[in-house]
Formats: sequence, structure tokens, C-alpha cells
Amino acid sequence: MKTPKISEAVVRRLPVYLRFLNELKANEVLTVSSQDLGQKLDLNPAQIRKDLAHFGEFGRKGIGYDVSYLIEKIRAILKLDRVMNVALVGAGNLGRALSNYNAYLKDNMKIVAIFDNVPSKVGETVNNLQVQPMSELASTVKNREIRIGIITVPAAEAQNVADSFAAAGIEAILNFAPVILKVPSHIRIHHADFTTDLLSLAYYIEEEEEHE
Amino acid sequence: MKTPKISEAVVRRLPVYLRFLNELKANEVLTVSSQDLGQKLDLNPAQIRKDLAHFGEFGRKGIGYDVSYLIEKIRAILKLDRVMNVALVGAGNLGRALSNYNAYLKDNMKIVAIFDNVPSKVGETVNNLQVQPMSELASTVKNREIRIGIITVPAAEAQNVADSFAAAGIEAILNFAPVILKVPSHIRIHHADFTTDLLSLAYYIEEEEEHE
Repeated sequence: MKTPKISEAVVRRLPVYLRFLNELKANEVLTVSSQDLGQKLDLNPAQIRKDLAHFGEFGRKGIGYDVSYLIEKIRAILKLDRVMNVALVGAGNLGRALSNYNAYLKDNMKIVAIFDNVPSKVGETVNNLQVQPMSELASTVKNREIRIGIITVPAAEAQNVADSFAAAGIEAILNFAPVILKVPSHIRIHHADFTTDLLSLAYYIEEEEEHE
Repeated sequence: MKTPKISEAVVRRLPVYLRFLNELKANEVLTVSSQDLGQKLDLNPAQIRKDLAHFGEFGRKGIGYDVSYLIEKIRAILKLDRVMNVALVGAGNLGRALSNYNAYLKDNMKIVAIFDNVPSKVGETVNNLQVQPMSELASTVKNREIRIGIITVPAAEAQNVADSFAAAGIEAILNFAPVILKVPSHIRIHHADFTTDLLSLAYYIEEEEEHE
């Protein structure tokens, strides 16, 4: 049976739910209401009930959602029950910072290889991974069955890295370089851009001021 | 006249439009169609027309949108025509990486101060800013009229930083620490989490495989 098609907005919210649910589980909380989820995650409880209803009726009136069950269900929908190896290109400040997140990448998703084309960086150890030269990208992607690539190089080099990822058979890319990249249509690319978050914050500041 | 209330999803897309429009302008492109915007930004052209229609009828059939006019309009809506100073706490890899983005933060939004509570980091220069001790946060926020705070400290310290921001009068926070923070209700907080982007990418990889 195929999972019904889920909107992009919902797919992007599921990991947010998952993160909070994992926190609750670590604190031995057994059930959670859509009100509590909404308050904690700054979302409308009705929206949360609607999101979660995509996957069947989990919640029970007056009791809420079973935390462990919901975690399992979301993990299955996001297919985090399978190995999903990640390669990162760009061992600068951002690449190093992101590789620190490995500890938070629960389940089977891990950054397993880091690449850079700067000779002085090759061979350095970043979070237990040795930085490899770009010439090893294709063979490492194949041998380690890497399916996702992260780009943390400067804007001017990002398209080259995307091309290398595409040639190596990477299926999805998370791009942090502040430039829009072209990739073949079978590759899913997300552009991560913290300036987007910052600029949209400004909208809310001024809004609140005007309404006061 | 007040700007009509715009949904969070649209507000989050506006900076993405803005970035691409600025690129077009730099390349001396004068007009753009919703089809071109959609293709470049991986959005449905109908969605784009709907988003932009919030702000009056910009587009003209067969000609498209006037790039410069659309930039001005979006800047006004996001209120990027005003000074919006930003403080960053946490001069580690991520903080350093983010402060590099200052060059891309066009307009009046800039990181103008960096803080850290690690003595060895205080006084270091990061992208032309000297790292200041946390004891100077409140006075600097006041003197520089800083309204937005960015948190790039480890998870265990993030709530303390959020509390310090709140006490100093910061109005909005962008949190990169992988933990959900509590702030007073008048403060807008966005949680930036690259693991969310990564985990949602996995959903699409597997989806495509199943449909093949």
C-alpha cells in the first residue's frame, strides 16, 4: 500500500513534530494533546490534528496522542527506518558546524563523508571524519551508498559541486550556498537559507508594533 | 493603511522571491513571468500569482512582473526599508559561518554584534566584529538599537541566552540550537533546524523510488 501523497508543508512539519516527540519520550512523557503540541511548536492545534489525521486517527479525546506510537508512525512515513547516508562538501565553518549535528541525527541518517577541494583541508579530521579530496567523491558515494549531499562551499563553487553530486548519483541535495542551483529534474534540491528566516522575522516585529 | 495580514507560509516565501529577483536585477533582467519564477524556485506558477496578488495586481499578461517594482514592493512589505540590527550569541563554527552571510544581508539588516561567554573567544575578531562578553549584551542591545537575536550556542546554554535576549529587550529570535526554547509571548521566535530539511528530503527520495 502506498502512502497517500502529503503536501510539502506537512512533510516539512513532520520532523519538527518528531523532534519534540523524541524530547517528550526522553522525559518519559507517555501522551500529548494537540493543544500542548500547538503551544510548544507555535502551531494551531486544529492544524496539528489535521496534519496527523493524514495518517489515520491517532488521537483519543481527553487522552491525546500516544507519544511512542506517533514517533513510530512519523518515522515510518518519513522512512527513517532505512539507512540514509549523507555526504557533505565544504569543510569550512558551516560544514564543521553541520557535522556537529550528527549527534542529533537520530535513526539511520548520518553524515558519513566530508569532502573539500582545498589541499590544506584534505586529511584534517572533522568530527571523527577525515576530509577527503573531491576526486574521491564518486567512488565514496558508490561504496558507502550515499544518497543525500549537503553543499557548504562558497556560492561561486556551488554549481560545480551540484554537478559532481549529480554525476555521482546523489538523489537529493541540501544547498547552503546563497545561490540557486540547477540540477537534473530527478534530483530533489532544497535551498537552506538562514537569511530567509531572518528577513521573515523582521516582518513580524514590525507587524506587532503597528498593531500596538 | 495597514498591510493586510499575510499567512506565515507566504511571509516565508517572500524573501525567497526577493533573493531571486535581486539576482535577476543584478543581471539586468527587467521582467519575469510567474512561469520563470516557478521553474527557478520550484513552486507552482499559480501559487506564485496568488502570493503576489496579495499586494495588488503587479503582473501583466504576456509581459510578466516588473523586477524592480516587485523588489521594492516586497521590501516594503517585509519592511526592509528600516534599520534592523541583529546580535549573534555563540562565536563557534556556526556563529562564524552565519556572520559570513552579512555580505548577503542586503538592505538594512546586519549582524552588528557578536557575543560569547567563553573567555578565550572574547576579543577575537570575527568578520570585522570583535567578540564581546555576555556582560555587555544588555547595554549593546540598547545602544545599537538591536531588535533581533540569533542563538548559535550549544543546546544546554540556549535557554539562558534566550532569557538574556528577552531581558535585554530583543523582539525576535532565530534559534539554531537543537532545542525548543521558551520566550515571553511578545517575542517572535523561529527555530532554524537543518535536520528538519534533511529529514524531509529523505521523504522525497523514497517517494520517487516507490513511484518508479
